[in-house]
Amino acid sequence: MRGVFITLEGADGCGKSTQAALLADALGARGREVVRLREPGGTQISEKIRALLLDPANADMAPECELLLYEASRAQLTRQVIEPALARGAVVLCDRYYDSTYAYQAGGRGLDEALVRRANLLGSCGVAPARTLVLDLDPALGYARATSGGADRMEAEGLAFQERVRAAYLRLAAAEPDRVRVVDASGEKNEVTARLLVELEDLL
Amino acid sequence: MRGVFITLEGADGCGKSTQAALLADALGARGREVVRLREPGGTQISEKIRALLLDPANADMAPECELLLYEASRAQLTRQVIEPALARGAVVLCDRYYDSTYAYQAGGRGLDEALVRRANLLGSCGVAPARTLVLDLDPALGYARATSGGADRMEAEGLAFQERVRAAYLRLAAAEPDRVRVVDASGEKNEVTARLLVELEDLL
Repeated sequence: MRGVFITLEGADGCGKSTQAALLADALGARGREVVRLREPGGTQISEKIRALLLDPANADMAPECELLLYEASRAQLTRQVIEPALARGAVVLCDRYYDSTYAYQAGGRGLDEALVRRANLLGSCGVAPARTLVLDLDPALGYARATSGGADRMEAEGLAFQERVRAAYLRLAAAEPDRVRVVDASGEKNEVTARLLVELEDLL
Repeated sequence: MRGVFITLEGADGCGKSTQAALLADALGARGREVVRLREPGGTQISEKIRALLLDPANADMAPECELLLYEASRAQLTRQVIEPALARGAVVLCDRYYDSTYAYQAGGRGLDEALVRRANLLGSCGVAPARTLVLDLDPALGYARATSGGADRMEAEGLAFQERVRAAYLRLAAAEPDRVRVVDASGEKNEVTARLLVELEDLL
């Protein structure tokens, strides 16, 4: 693969979407083709799966079902979009990937870690990010931001859930320091983008 | 678990739906509570996933995505319906379960067998059938039956696909002779039901 696969991670309300846009602009300005994606979603099939996952009407979803739906959406995105983009040399910038599944399902929901890792291997079709940037923010602040317009099914889990999600991200970064970098997401948005770019310099 | 978990399997058009109804009647007549299910489906969430899987508009679905959607539907059915029914002592009669995934995805589509087995373990949440009845019929005959009213996305794969599916079922029965029994599905429907009941006597 000639391209570079970068993922953005973090608890709800950490500013990932804003930073994904700013980062895409900054990378594009360096003359790279940038493919910006978000998970779950990014293909017609994956967006249909996303709708199932985020619909509050499906509140009785079993944790194993939820896990497998995320992986199904991911497998479609990986095969249909990510692999072809990397093959032609693009920078793929994905808002959430399998570390979200680890942080939310194993960390937040308490699903067995080995189960989640096995599922992640299936859903990613073995395609791993070259670098993962975790936007780190006080969970209380992020949660207030994320739920100000009403809570989706995942956000409705509450603040304690978001704190477990954050702790899981920090464990990942400790376990895989080369791939996973924690970046302070507080302060002015262009400053945050600059901090993210520092963590990508060696790859670009 | 005090109940009995029985699954019905076979290529398209083998008469599973008809036999599931007849078998449910026969078991009910013996005074057992019978919970009759079909896969994919059987819960509100699983039926939504079924609709995605069978919609011909989703023909560009990656094989890994398809596999994981089947497993997601299965996990919901297992947790929400099968486990509680077995816990209260019912006979659960399921039209397709994880052996279909093996036969269609590994056999039919040629997905890696180890991958499919790992996915089956996730989707079934570790719940295995006590007995699996494979309705065996000449694939050409079954295929003609199944497609007489128009082909769904899976049936549209053609006859060679159905032949690979049948071969996979026969391999399973050879590997697990106690659990998986192949039953001749040709002839008069009440005769077929009688053959199925013979294979269940030791469990009832």
